[in-house]
Amino acid sequence: MRVLGVDPGLTRCGVGVVEGVAGRPLTMLGVGVVRTAADDDIGTRLVGIERGIEEWLDRFSPELVAVERVFSQHNVRTVMGTAQASAVAMLCASRRGIPVALHTPSEVKAAVTGSGRADKAQVGAMVTRLLRLSAPPKPADAADALALAICHIWRAPAQNRLQQAVAQNRLQQAAARHASAEKGRTR
Amino acid sequence: MRVLGVDPGLTRCGVGVVEGVAGRPLTMLGVGVVRTAADDDIGTRLVGIERGIEEWLDRFSPELVAVERVFSQHNVRTVMGTAQASAVAMLCASRRGIPVALHTPSEVKAAVTGSGRADKAQVGAMVTRLLRLSAPPKPADAADALALAICHIWRAPAQNRLQQAVAQNRLQQAAARHASAEKGRTR
Repeated sequence: MRVLGVDPGLTRCGVGVVEGVAGRPLTMLGVGVVRTAADDDIGTRLVGIERGIEEWLDRFSPELVAVERVFSQHNVRTVMGTAQASAVAMLCASRRGIPVALHTPSEVKAAVTGSGRADKAQVGAMVTRLLRLSAPPKPADAADALALAICHIWRAPAQNRLQQAVAQNRLQQAAARHASAEKGRTR
Repeated sequence: MRVLGVDPGLTRCGVGVVEGVAGRPLTMLGVGVVRTAADDDIGTRLVGIERGIEEWLDRFSPELVAVERVFSQHNVRTVMGTAQASAVAMLCASRRGIPVALHTPSEVKAAVTGSGRADKAQVGAMVTRLLRLSAPPKPADAADALALAICHIWRAPAQNRLQQAVAQNRLQQAAARHASAEKGRTR
């Protein structure tokens, strides 16, 4: 399966696409960062994130988008920006009927390094090894996005297929509800 | 000026449109709530919020969207949902070049009741009086959305005109940047 991992952030939103199945060597198809200017207003920055995520979805057509689950942190300002960027990523995926999976940072670290308390360098080193890259992806947000995608592919192959079916079904139901609401209104 | 106020939330997102200028009686053009089902997944809910906000923007063509500024609260789960719903509202507005203004709950309460610590009932009562309604709008989220719009109209008339000019200009610049990036890619 092909997964787009998203490490959400307003200033640097890490994105990485990994293809493969659990138990086989994985392949990296692309990695990068969607950036927005810190001096732009919040609305403009969210539009920039949306545009960036849409480009990655267009280019790689992932079957699933894995997003880091946001927790409250010490810095309230940072966590709000992270929650907002993650909302845009989830919105872009769901709008296309692509299922979204959330993984916590410690789930991701544990999946790729064996320890939920691994540091950035360990995660970067393992991502490099698992995807057979010549050097760790930079910045760390890009490596984290790849780690999210790897974590997802390894965690639940059967669950993924179920999620895809459910997401497609919900999109169809929502479209049907919307169509009938539109019909009711124009009557 | 015409302002759409948005009291963000995943389960109930209050929306209200107010028209007028500071120092003159204000007019309510519409009020309501965009709802999403608590048992839907987060991506589906964000798509529902987007669809709802888009309908309000289509229907009322506001010149500005006023959104409640989200702060960290005791309940981390709630604040995340609020931050995510507010991101979708800001995204929808900014995508159309409509400026977004953020006001804190206490700014809104102070603007409509004279006290930053007013309760829901006081806010509802003042919104009813200021907009010459026959009864307080229900639920409270709908009344809060109207209060946000009123707060914005009263706070800064000169600042609003400046913001609109800046937002339009940013949108044009972003479109130009995007166009030149696309051009670079297809070359």
